[in-house]
Amino acid sequence: MNEPALRALCARIPALDPAVAARTQALLDGKTKPRRSLGRLEELACRVAAIRGEDAPALGDKAMVVMAADHGVAEEGVSAYPQEVTAQMLLNFARGGAAINVLARQAGARVVVVDMGVREPLAGAPPEIRARRVGPGTQNFTRGPAMSREQALEAIGAGAAIAEELAASGVGLVGIGEMGIGNTTSASALTALLTGAAPEEVTGRGTGIDDAGLRRKVDAIRRGLALHRPGGDALSALAQLGGFEIAGLAGVVLGAAAARVPVIADGFIAGVAALCAARIEPRAAACLLPSHRSVEVGHRLVLQALELRPLFDLELRLGEGTGAALAMGLVESSLRILHEMATFAAAGVSDTGR
Amino acid sequence: MNEPALRALCARIPALDPAVAARTQALLDGKTKPRRSLGRLEELACRVAAIRGEDAPALGDKAMVVMAADHGVAEEGVSAYPQEVTAQMLLNFARGGAAINVLARQAGARVVVVDMGVREPLAGAPPEIRARRVGPGTQNFTRGPAMSREQALEAIGAGAAIAEELAASGVGLVGIGEMGIGNTTSASALTALLTGAAPEEVTGRGTGIDDAGLRRKVDAIRRGLALHRPGGDALSALAQLGGFEIAGLAGVVLGAAAARVPVIADGFIAGVAALCAARIEPRAAACLLPSHRSVEVGHRLVLQALELRPLFDLELRLGEGTGAALAMGLVESSLRILHEMATFAAAGVSDTGR
Repeated sequence: MNEPALRALCARIPALDPAVAARTQALLDGKTKPRRSLGRLEELACRVAAIRGEDAPALGDKAMVVMAADHGVAEEGVSAYPQEVTAQMLLNFARGGAAINVLARQAGARVVVVDMGVREPLAGAPPEIRARRVGPGTQNFTRGPAMSREQALEAIGAGAAIAEELAASGVGLVGIGEMGIGNTTSASALTALLTGAAPEEVTGRGTGIDDAGLRRKVDAIRRGLALHRPGGDALSALAQLGGFEIAGLAGVVLGAAAARVPVIADGFIAGVAALCAARIEPRAAACLLPSHRSVEVGHRLVLQALELRPLFDLELRLGEGTGAALAMGLVESSLRILHEMATFAAAGVSDTGR
Repeated sequence: MNEPALRALCARIPALDPAVAARTQALLDGKTKPRRSLGRLEELACRVAAIRGEDAPALGDKAMVVMAADHGVAEEGVSAYPQEVTAQMLLNFARGGAAINVLARQAGARVVVVDMGVREPLAGAPPEIRARRVGPGTQNFTRGPAMSREQALEAIGAGAAIAEELAASGVGLVGIGEMGIGNTTSASALTALLTGAAPEEVTGRGTGIDDAGLRRKVDAIRRGLALHRPGGDALSALAQLGGFEIAGLAGVVLGAAAARVPVIADGFIAGVAALCAARIEPRAAACLLPSHRSVEVGHRLVLQALELRPLFDLELRLGEGTGAALAMGLVESSLRILHEMATFAAAGVSDTGR
């Protein structure tokens, strides 16, 4: 994808019509329950309806897009796990043994596993893994840009194409998740840059680094931010500090928004990808549904920036899309309520309009 | 059920062995994820294991017990809906059109609908409704006891028998929900009595009464509490201020605890039923799993008294078991993680023990 193609994609993202959500709320108000007594489930149904542009949208199929890539900044000693775990987990996703496989299976979502650029190409990789490798991991952002602007565009284009393909095949709800040793460091740096927060405000322990590791992580982020020229756009921020999976997931959000498919971003890193998409094209933010709030401290700022109120906080800090898979169950509940509940009139229940 | 039978039931409720939960946590620590990174899902799996008394318990079948009854106190003008709605909703449950039917279907739970005593016996009631009618609704507790001690025991016995029957048929997870116009008034009065809180601290708008109705509700609770002789046990509190469905659900909790089946209490009213069970036999509290936090203000105090930290707050205020049905999905997730995820060793993923 080049810059004109990105602009063309963004131009196809619609503004939502609030009248659709109002009509969906009126349908819910006719169901056998006190008005609004299903709280945020009703809010979810109305938001999905507005995104889809239909008063009572079908749920459609569900897909969880999990992108993995390696990060040059891992060499700064910012993770509790060695870099080879990224590729090992990619294989685990393909074989169905990871947490996201288990939770996506329960949610009825297919898992789309994408290699956006782990360090070593996987020898004999199972066909379940889609190879969209932008490179053998990013560069160390403490020494220069993580990737070129062209690479960022390539990753976004790959993600957008996957989203549009899923939408065309009947997917009506997309989750986004990720894997990449070192990627909370990228996500924290991007959060600091995009929200103006200080590095120590947005940096957590990721998979579980100790105090010394946390100090190295904050220091690496500070050095990365010092290299960034101010005044750049979201695309240049992604190139400077991002990861191939983060840029790819930003592309998924843009592609899904253009196709009117709601997106659930998992936790901190997927949330940062969604924030990048929203900074590239503000109308894309409207296609996001709330998800969980993770343990990672930076996630709070990302959710605030996206104006998303989390649905639950189960103290998750795994990533992969796990929280998004749990949230998919709630989105399904909201649409089932809309489609399957009886009305006061049909059930012969007295309605006081309260 | 008489008092010796209740004592015999309580004597069968086991104390839980913390070693079981510790062994379950060790199993989870071997799965391909950073230690404890699935947060409260891991806590849920360990709690279910301790209740079942097995390191890696099967999920088993799920059942949602929904009990309905009428309340004499409704004549004090404490609800936004007329009393006939209790029986109308009972029929709606039997026909599958209510919110709890929709959400239980999604969760894979059968719905067990029980008439504990709506005002008029249902003419031509569908066989899906189990008739365990203790009476034609309770008496108005502002004028005397809501029911006799014998009626409270009858309701508890009916609930315990249903729980033990479900456990014997392979149910491994029970949810409890309710319907009864006026029953937030009973639940608030019981909460005040059992926790020592003031009536206005535990009284909310239920299905949506206005300010004048809320004042009438607090006043009715105050008058009901004034009639209660201090120093009574939980059974006499239930008889004085409770409802047939509340006593019945307390019985479900006691029966499930005796059968080592975990219980998810829905919102405020089902939570009060669980609190009554825990006051009758403190070991019963250990069989409760956390659920949601509802809009009803008294629910916070009930959850504190039960030492349950809610899993989510979706601003629900419907009852019926709706929040418990959503929580069932999370309990299922926790056991699927335990059974279906690969270990570090099996997946060939490097483990740093973090």
